[in-house]
Amino acid sequence: MSSLSVLPPECLLKPFPVPQRLMLGPGPSNVPARISAAGAQPMLGHLHTETIEIMNQIKSGIQYAFQTKNRVTLAVSGPGHAAMECAIFNSLEPGDKILIAVNGIWGERASEIAERIGAKVNTVETMAGGYLTNEEIEKALNKYRPAVFFLTHGESSTGVVHPIDGIGPLCRKYSCLFLVDSVAALGGAPICMDEQGIDILYTGSQKVLNAPPGTAPISFSERACHKIFNRKTKPISYFLDLNWLANYWGCDDKPVRSYHHTGPVSSFYALRESLAILAETGLENSWKRHKEVAEYFHKGLEQMGLKLFVQDKKARLPTVTTIVAPPGYDWREITGYIMKTFNIEISGGLGPSAGMVLRVGLMGCNSNKANVDKVLEALADALKHCHKSRV
Amino acid sequence: MSSLSVLPPECLLKPFPVPQRLMLGPGPSNVPARISAAGAQPMLGHLHTETIEIMNQIKSGIQYAFQTKNRVTLAVSGPGHAAMECAIFNSLEPGDKILIAVNGIWGERASEIAERIGAKVNTVETMAGGYLTNEEIEKALNKYRPAVFFLTHGESSTGVVHPIDGIGPLCRKYSCLFLVDSVAALGGAPICMDEQGIDILYTGSQKVLNAPPGTAPISFSERACHKIFNRKTKPISYFLDLNWLANYWGCDDKPVRSYHHTGPVSSFYALRESLAILAETGLENSWKRHKEVAEYFHKGLEQMGLKLFVQDKKARLPTVTTIVAPPGYDWREITGYIMKTFNIEISGGLGPSAGMVLRVGLMGCNSNKANVDKVLEALADALKHCHKSRV
Repeated sequence: MSSLSVLPPECLLKPFPVPQRLMLGPGPSNVPARISAAGAQPMLGHLHTETIEIMNQIKSGIQYAFQTKNRVTLAVSGPGHAAMECAIFNSLEPGDKILIAVNGIWGERASEIAERIGAKVNTVETMAGGYLTNEEIEKALNKYRPAVFFLTHGESSTGVVHPIDGIGPLCRKYSCLFLVDSVAALGGAPICMDEQGIDILYTGSQKVLNAPPGTAPISFSERACHKIFNRKTKPISYFLDLNWLANYWGCDDKPVRSYHHTGPVSSFYALRESLAILAETGLENSWKRHKEVAEYFHKGLEQMGLKLFVQDKKARLPTVTTIVAPPGYDWREITGYIMKTFNIEISGGLGPSAGMVLRVGLMGCNSNKANVDKVLEALADALKHCHKSRV
Repeated sequence: MSSLSVLPPECLLKPFPVPQRLMLGPGPSNVPARISAAGAQPMLGHLHTETIEIMNQIKSGIQYAFQTKNRVTLAVSGPGHAAMECAIFNSLEPGDKILIAVNGIWGERASEIAERIGAKVNTVETMAGGYLTNEEIEKALNKYRPAVFFLTHGESSTGVVHPIDGIGPLCRKYSCLFLVDSVAALGGAPICMDEQGIDILYTGSQKVLNAPPGTAPISFSERACHKIFNRKTKPISYFLDLNWLANYWGCDDKPVRSYHHTGPVSSFYALRESLAILAETGLENSWKRHKEVAEYFHKGLEQMGLKLFVQDKKARLPTVTTIVAPPGYDWREITGYIMKTFNIEISGGLGPSAGMVLRVGLMGCNSNKANVDKVLEALADALKHCHKSRV
């Protein structure tokens, strides 16, 4: 071989320091020093005794956070989208029917994923900012008779927390699995997997849990496992195959954990620490704080003359607030101004709410009144200084 | 809802300190403090200006490490197995033919993944510890006429570095894409993607690069992109769909990077730092050091009376050495003794080499003569103290 044709890039030959920023978008949220420090601990093997103990502790922490006794509880080695694929890939065989509740972007994404693997997808839809009644859900279950029903608990694109009570029993009545995405809500809004009859539940590490993105807690009920472990076909992904993952996480009866893939060991350290913080705080205290801080924020917004996108107070997601984009302004100028002037991230809409809202996340350690005061001040200043057309 | 039925787990209410250990298995390798510190920097948004700049620098770093000018060069948000699925999911449509070279576990895994998505899989096999000649490969290409040919560059289960020269032109002659897994070799054994006519190349972060596991550099040639971006069917995974990933990494012509998934921002910081270290060291210096250190190790092993598993000196992988399991000993006792007595990880075999070998990895910062002396001392001590039956 001749000498190298691609030279070392100049940009890598000098340091790239990362600035500190207040992360009040829909996630990732700020990572407390304690969690960063945990992630920076020495590397261990992905099957070393201590790593397995850490994974066992993560399992216990997820069982607590999800309020479940499910044996098959673990963290996927990837972001929330990998968990979404893990849930759908394992629970559906080609030709299986899935009913998807769509009231924002996450239902749309679940549909896209299920369609790709050859599932038959039906949707039950409502407008952005709204949610479905149990009557509407039962009607759709009765009509489509799906194998799996997908619902987003915290719809971060619209700022809606979807009611969960009563849907688990409906799914049992119609013999389907109840699959819930709680990436944006878990830890910040009440959800109890076992009591509410949820069969598959997942979340992300980078929202209320305040760990870096890259791992995704997930849990499967006995009913879900019964379907999954009796499939006729293998799941489409080896990397996300629950047979392998359950063994790697010690959730099966096999005496030895086989090598499947190399888990993100440092990210597991960080995830353990974030679950430890939740255990110390107490789930009910966390739910209460997120609710109070969100209500304090919503009151402040309304006092400024801003409007909340979600009309029904009960349906407002305590972790991510959607504000109607102030009339006459370009929302991009507002988020850009707040980033530049205050070094605070807030974001615009996503999917069905694109262009219609501003989104502010107050999640985990970021859920406190001091942050609310900061972001209210920043919003007031932005409305004063950004260009406003006549409306 | 009633009060909580699952209580905070006791194990999370006390700290779990992680011990320091010399990681001389087949990976993950030790993470230098500089890389851990980079990963612990403040969290930013996955589409913030600075994050995009870091991703651009990672791209440049991968282009250097891979010796490629490919525009579609990025890091998958998952471990090496996710990159393997990304390569196979995108390059094959259902019914497409893939030819897989099997001389260890990685070819077996690639076969498993390709079969799951409905590709037609043929293999060309050779014994563990061996490699294929270009004549054997050409014969198989001619016989099976695949769309993709898969080869493992660094077969970490057997300790073989597979010759690459001449195979790229053969793949062109038979109009197939040349897909290479270099998870265990990249940075430690010479490979030049463009010059050697490789169409898809991927590696992991946790081997020679010394970053934590959880990201996987990958690159696609123009030929590969032509096939992938003109597919008739969508890739089976949304999370690993190259159309989306290429946009997220700024590898397409679109003016805006759309939200696809939340990248593991902290892991990107760490990966950037690991590529910076490689750029500072120089690829040729890194190759040379790994070769010299491995040869020094192999000489020491032979002086102790131990036998190398790979007969052909040229085919010995400089990053992971396979040693014939010492006759009369239980290999588990040896690795356990060395862990307990010296706090050094070395490992047993994997897949076709299970029970037959000991494996020692000397990768990235771990590739130095001081570590060789340590592991030789540990091995000598183990052979003295572990139980030996008559042979």
